[in-house]
Amino acid sequence: MDHVIHTELILRQHPLPLALDHRALGLCIEACMECEQACTSCADACLGEGRPDELVKCIRLCQDCADISDITARIASRQTAGDERLLRELLHACALACKLCGEECLKHSGLDHCRACAEACERCQQACTRLIAAASA
Amino acid sequence: MDHVIHTELILRQHPLPLALDHRALGLCIEACMECEQACTSCADACLGEGRPDELVKCIRLCQDCADISDITARIASRQTAGDERLLRELLHACALACKLCGEECLKHSGLDHCRACAEACERCQQACTRLIAAASA
Amino acid sequence: MDHVIHTELILRQHPLPLALDHRALGLCIEACMECEQACTSCADACLGEGRPDELVKCIRLCQDCADISDITARIASRQTAGDERLLRELLHACALACKLCGEECLKHSGLDHCRACAEACERCQQACTRLIAAASA
Amino acid sequence: MDHVIHTELILRQHPLPLALDHRALGLCIEACMECEQACTSCADACLGEGRPDELVKCIRLCQDCADISDITARIASRQTAGDERLLRELLHACALACKLCGEECLKHSGLDHCRACAEACERCQQACTRLIAAASA
Repeated sequence: MDHVIHTELILRQHPLPLALDHRALGLCIEACMECEQACTSCADACLGEGRPDELVKCIRLCQDCADISDITARIASRQTAGDERLLRELLHACALACKLCGEECLKHSGLDHCRACAEACERCQQACTRLIAAASA
Repeated sequence: MDHVIHTELILRQHPLPLALDHRALGLCIEACMECEQACTSCADACLGEGRPDELVKCIRLCQDCADISDITARIASRQTAGDERLLRELLHACALACKLCGEECLKHSGLDHCRACAEACERCQQACTRLIAAASA
Repeated sequence: MDHVIHTELILRQHPLPLALDHRALGLCIEACMECEQACTSCADACLGEGRPDELVKCIRLCQDCADISDITARIASRQTAGDERLLRELLHACALACKLCGEECLKHSGLDHCRACAEACERCQQACTRLIAAASA
Repeated sequence: MDHVIHTELILRQHPLPLALDHRALGLCIEACMECEQACTSCADACLGEGRPDELVKCIRLCQDCADISDITARIASRQTAGDERLLRELLHACALACKLCGEECLKHSGLDHCRACAEACERCQQACTRLIAAASA
């Protein structure tokens, strides 16, 4: 993916050495960004479906997941003088948000936006989990 | 504080019953909002001090803490169809961000904005910890 | 309001002189924070009302208004090396978001959270407008 | 770019007809996301350069631009019951933030992250300007 390479490249331009693997970090940031976008779109599309009662939980979890994946991408993008414990806690919270949101979206996989959102959530959950493993190594 | 009461009031106007204590929730949201503002101001004031080298860690942790306390306030403000585990994970991450940021700010307590920020962080950490306890009860 | 004074105080602790009036700036930041919280709560409460069809527009505008008032508070909180044109453009966008959201909420003023949100939007719109005037003076 | 197509696809899955051109909208959202990431990375890399005094303005404008491009992507992603005037005002503010930030970054184009950030800002400014034109057509 063109974009992931771009994120990884900008991470490599940082003046300080990076404790984490650039590739895993770049992929995680990218997956978080994609997840924020998919969740924002999905919450909004659910709202427009004209049957929001059954989609209330989906809308709520998409909103939470968008908010968490946004700041996970931000904080993971910062490499200067941070604290790795904080990134790890946040990655755990983000992975949980993705899991909950993805599972709920899968219940409405007849809706294209819910299926696409479930896939973005799964990619993000995996990328967070891999970065947690890389950060603990 | 006038403002906390306002947040608590708007929480009480929600159509669904709330699992959590309205007062603890309102205080936590309010403390997160205050913390986001104090951290944003402190990061910016540190940047303007003309000796950013010794304040680099403070700026970084203030940025992270502002981002996390912002979405903790948002997600805690939502009462419809959410998942309590997610709120709990996020409250833990927010309390950690406040602890790290507050400790760093205390090292520069000769700077008024750092001292004020450390106090806001401490209030937010305590409010998050109390809400975790209330949510687990 | 206790809180506004706190925001104004932390603004006064900044090392650089401020082009804008501290009081107008502090009030605007505070009003934006209150507006973000009220809009987040109102969107969520509308979602829980069990009749979201008539509240779809309200939910949508509350989400937009929460997002804009959040970053208006952030950017207005920064005093170091910024650009006043940008703050002014953002204040205009925030005032418009508040106007649109507040007008929509007033249509459902039978709902307590919508009435409270309309009031928060109006206060925020006025505070933004006053700060624009102060910035242009 | 793989990613733009993904954003455009998820926009097409929305249940309601879209007033705007899907392609211009998808490209703008994607450019805003890339810009938020580049600005977040650049602000942080500048902070780590060990000579932050000359980079203070760059850090500040990158932070503002990251905040604005984030919510521009969010609000542009929503297609349900919104207000086009608000999107337009926000696109103008985002284009201005990109212009100011990109111009400042170009002053330090000897730094790879500043050059990359300037490019991301320019792409985002162009995408916002194109979407304004499309929205006014």
